[in-house]
Amino acid sequence: MRHMPLHDITATDIVRLTASGALTAEAVTTACLERIAQREDAVRAWEYIDPDHALREARELDRGPARGPLHGVPIGIKDIIATADMPTGYGSPIYAGHRPAWDAACVAAIRAAGGIVLGKTVTTEFASSRAGKTVHPADPARTPGGSSSGSAAAVADRMLPLAVGTQTGGSIVRPASFCGVVGYKPSFGWIDRHGVKPLSESLDTVGVMARSIDDAARLVAVMAGRPELLDLKEVERPRIAVWSCDALDEAAPDMLACIRRAIDSLAQSGAVLVDCREPISTSDLDKAHHVIEYVEMGRALAFELQRYPGQLSPALRKRIESGQSYTAETYDEMKRVARQCRRAMRSLFSEFDAVIFPSTLGEAPTGHQSTGNALFNRFWTALYGPVITIPAGSGAAGMPLGIQLIGAIGDDLRLLSLARWAQSILRSDR
Amino acid sequence: MRHMPLHDITATDIVRLTASGALTAEAVTTACLERIAQREDAVRAWEYIDPDHALREARELDRGPARGPLHGVPIGIKDIIATADMPTGYGSPIYAGHRPAWDAACVAAIRAAGGIVLGKTVTTEFASSRAGKTVHPADPARTPGGSSSGSAAAVADRMLPLAVGTQTGGSIVRPASFCGVVGYKPSFGWIDRHGVKPLSESLDTVGVMARSIDDAARLVAVMAGRPELLDLKEVERPRIAVWSCDALDEAAPDMLACIRRAIDSLAQSGAVLVDCREPISTSDLDKAHHVIEYVEMGRALAFELQRYPGQLSPALRKRIESGQSYTAETYDEMKRVARQCRRAMRSLFSEFDAVIFPSTLGEAPTGHQSTGNALFNRFWTALYGPVITIPAGSGAAGMPLGIQLIGAIGDDLRLLSLARWAQSILRSDR
Repeated sequence: MRHMPLHDITATDIVRLTASGALTAEAVTTACLERIAQREDAVRAWEYIDPDHALREARELDRGPARGPLHGVPIGIKDIIATADMPTGYGSPIYAGHRPAWDAACVAAIRAAGGIVLGKTVTTEFASSRAGKTVHPADPARTPGGSSSGSAAAVADRMLPLAVGTQTGGSIVRPASFCGVVGYKPSFGWIDRHGVKPLSESLDTVGVMARSIDDAARLVAVMAGRPELLDLKEVERPRIAVWSCDALDEAAPDMLACIRRAIDSLAQSGAVLVDCREPISTSDLDKAHHVIEYVEMGRALAFELQRYPGQLSPALRKRIESGQSYTAETYDEMKRVARQCRRAMRSLFSEFDAVIFPSTLGEAPTGHQSTGNALFNRFWTALYGPVITIPAGSGAAGMPLGIQLIGAIGDDLRLLSLARWAQSILRSDR
Repeated sequence: MRHMPLHDITATDIVRLTASGALTAEAVTTACLERIAQREDAVRAWEYIDPDHALREARELDRGPARGPLHGVPIGIKDIIATADMPTGYGSPIYAGHRPAWDAACVAAIRAAGGIVLGKTVTTEFASSRAGKTVHPADPARTPGGSSSGSAAAVADRMLPLAVGTQTGGSIVRPASFCGVVGYKPSFGWIDRHGVKPLSESLDTVGVMARSIDDAARLVAVMAGRPELLDLKEVERPRIAVWSCDALDEAAPDMLACIRRAIDSLAQSGAVLVDCREPISTSDLDKAHHVIEYVEMGRALAFELQRYPGQLSPALRKRIESGQSYTAETYDEMKRVARQCRRAMRSLFSEFDAVIFPSTLGEAPTGHQSTGNALFNRFWTALYGPVITIPAGSGAAGMPLGIQLIGAIGDDLRLLSLARWAQSILRSDR
């Protein structure tokens, strides 16, 4: 007998229970919409929501056979991602009310698998830095993180089980960690980006927010066309590299305490944790990430800078112009650095199942000028492997803290399996 | 004193002469529009053209200072590429009259450099196989090649000096070769693809059609942000690998004679040509290309298959469905094959400046059911290096034949310099 409210259900349970006839997609969707109606004024996670449309889709699903691994699951879509039946504004006044001609490839995959697109979640301006209207669900004075702000806040606030985000620097891991949910950035290239407004072709990655690893894996299984992720493996005595680098000096004391506790708990549960001084220069890689992101942003947003300069935030305008000022030589050199780092990581991953590292510098900061610092995320994104953040306790102010697990490129199944095991341990600790 | 008609002018001359005040952008644009008015009924290269709009832009350029390396140059844009001020139909009835909210990144770069977007050139359906309305400029019974059919035919027919195309298999090289113009597919990743309707994320490449190598280099210099391409180098005794592989058995006798003649001419002019039995399996790579293209097409066009199945050609529908039927394991394996082939080519390019190979199986075939065979193009596209086709004579029916020069990834400047040298030799031969 379930006692938790229906809006708190996992995607995995929705699919199981709708298949057995114990639950309808309509009931789940109604529960989520009710939760949103109660909480949205406080959290402001949504850019657009159309309850009638969602309920119609739910009823249609209830009338038909099981459509796929997301049958009846309400899902939020970051508003940087195109939807043909809902406006898509990319977090910019330039595109307020814009209606794309198509669904993004990832949205088409979700619908084909029976997922219900509940609405569009708030993004920062073009998934870059200017914050949207969303606040931290546990403390409205704090940022929820960004750029996938609404996706993280909505899932954390139990408005729905799953939401899609994107990460170029730290746009999935940071808000997920700040809000206390699971964030999963799959291997670069796994999810087709057609319909995602680009910031940086070499870095943009579609991923997910969830409250359980199984749910996160399920949504990526569908979007990436990798059904093997529906069946995570049991894990025994995983080998985990405890990464250290100078950047860690930036971590807050409560975050350092949090990751030490997590390491101890995992070790006590049988993991082999080995200290590892970074085999690559993360500061060089961070610099490479910066140049690659900015140069590519300078191309991808050239039209907006030309046509609507006054409707871009001054900070973004400056970033685009800065990106346009680099030479191709510098860009090529930075791409080379990133490639070399990816190669250098291969031997590490032949010895370890994953790397462990704090997800953020600390708790979600107060104020809404910034969505927080992505220092602990950018270089992992540039390494192209899967990254998963799981909740691992709370900080000095009682706000959530998360730890990242990072895997080898393409080895998402192994990392998800490990992350599920780790989450079960860290959850029972609390 | 110039005696050729003004519509036959090169981009390089337009920029030079408008800068000196000897020519106006309006005069060039008028000449191109007149040529189009005369010839379009026969060639059908254009999906959309707006003479008044183009003339307004030209006059505005004439009133201002030199804007950049494309100042006053009329340019055609393949209709798979988004333009905010012109409809963009992607070669499909699904998007007839569709007006994108933005210019593609490459179009924004062209405009910022003073280029005049004259209109949209015909593409096959979503840059895949179903032919558009364009015919071969020299023989209306023959295909102009595809998918960049209109771009090749318009440049070949002297309607304008430059046009943008895209290549996933052989969609720049094949039509350029069939129509007797220069086609240049730059290194993969050089030109941002935002606004280009994707077929295959791992293969789609933006490139150009021109009548001279300098012009082709100029347009890519702007779109890729690589001004070094504006200054091609002198070439001395280049080393060229004469590639042989089983696929060559498919070449027509006139094409084999053509490439032998080209090889002899280049050797007589000082090039060192060395026979080279393929260091990779081109047939394995061709198979890898097929799977990668189809799987990614299955994702990128999933929305169109879901929403508008009846408006897709049966052949494309079958391709999308076929792409969706491969497992991720097969896809990963084929990506691995392609990566290994790219690595294996590095040592070859440490010994040679370029590889030489026929651009197509032979002359443009008669009939409009197909736009020809991309067998001689797909594996080069999958190798990610620059590919340039230059006219190299004519075949049994008097139709143009081209040869490809293929370079190392990122080494476009070297390949363009070599291609310019080769074109000067092959041109004077004829």
